[in-house]
Amino acid sequence: MRLADLSEISGVSLATIKYYLREGLLPPGRLVNATQAEYDESHLRRLRLVRAMIQVGRIPVATVREVLSHIDDDSLGLTLRLGAALWALPHPTEPALGPADDPSTTDARKLVDDLLARLGWAHVREVGELSPAHRALIAALATLGRLGYPLDADDLLPYARTMAQAAAYDLDRMEALPTPQEQAEYAVAAAVLFEPVLLNLRRLAQSEESGRRYGV
Amino acid sequence: MRLADLSEISGVSLATIKYYLREGLLPPGRLVNATQAEYDESHLRRLRLVRAMIQVGRIPVATVREVLSHIDDDSLGLTLRLGAALWALPHPTEPALGPADDPSTTDARKLVDDLLARLGWAHVREVGELSPAHRALIAALATLGRLGYPLDADDLLPYARTMAQAAAYDLDRMEALPTPQEQAEYAVAAAVLFEPVLLNLRRLAQSEESGRRYGV
Repeated sequence: MRLADLSEISGVSLATIKYYLREGLLPPGRLVNATQAEYDESHLRRLRLVRAMIQVGRIPVATVREVLSHIDDDSLGLTLRLGAALWALPHPTEPALGPADDPSTTDARKLVDDLLARLGWAHVREVGELSPAHRALIAALATLGRLGYPLDADDLLPYARTMAQAAAYDLDRMEALPTPQEQAEYAVAAAVLFEPVLLNLRRLAQSEESGRRYGV
Repeated sequence: MRLADLSEISGVSLATIKYYLREGLLPPGRLVNATQAEYDESHLRRLRLVRAMIQVGRIPVATVREVLSHIDDDSLGLTLRLGAALWALPHPTEPALGPADDPSTTDARKLVDDLLARLGWAHVREVGELSPAHRALIAALATLGRLGYPLDADDLLPYARTMAQAAAYDLDRMEALPTPQEQAEYAVAAAVLFEPVLLNLRRLAQSEESGRRYGV
């Protein structure tokens, strides 16, 4: 398809597509003559992902470029390809309310160690605080402790187990896609776009459970 | 305790506490003489909650005041008290990418109806789109559809079921508290503070599952 078709099918304006091309967020089309290029399904897919990251995830252009570079890195095995792309994304966290080495952070770090040991999450333990999600989890738990809502591993275990189930569904869906590149694209789109779905499902589930237990 | 003690124990500055008192976010202490007031555990608890909403949740003061008014409304049964307090909170959502009545929104609305029917969530269905979480879920799914990542009820069912489990844990923990007011305070703190914990647990779970399935 030509650039105009790509714009029409995707619903993204020509100006925006040209901006993405200039910024290297969308690979150039295949030149068919001196003034015309052809675009295909892979461009459409990439365009959707870039739009999801920029317009919905409000992720900076430089970060999007980094995420895409990992998605496209054929030298990586699937775990590392996914890992590098997801690590480059911003992580849900809170403003830091204290220094990194205060007692709440020390407690939170012990709590996460304990939790991961009891879950038997060996891969995650091996990577440790190199992982931004690991660091963000410690920071979030430190904030809870500092505000007077301390948690222990028993509190967190059932949530971690339900998230492990959700992760298995995520990967099942991802594996239905044909190439590692498409699988990595899917994982990134799911991380950016699916979090509000999950959080709103949680709020609806709370409301349902509350109605069942306590009536109106 | 006196105001200075409240400040020391909570770690919140005197100036901030006085601001919260002026704004009606913290009830006045019990006057013991013309110039001195006494504060108790309920003030400390309320102060923690207000700080969590304002400093971590970045929730506007007027919204915090509204949430607190529902928490303190003894005329409401527990479901309505929780519901009103949680509804007043901001909901996780994305910037709207199109008009509310476009085909993606119509599809998303049907999808949510179908999902809730299959889950048998009768309370949530009865309330319908009066609930901000219901509306935010439709908006998030409409955005996914519009970006080329449509989901169906089969995709969403397992996630909804894991969120129902998580909601049951939430309410179990809440029920350990002695008064409806404290229970409602807990539910609000959990909504504001616990979401980053859950999302980071999800990312760690994905990373663990990926390591197990695909190696490094």
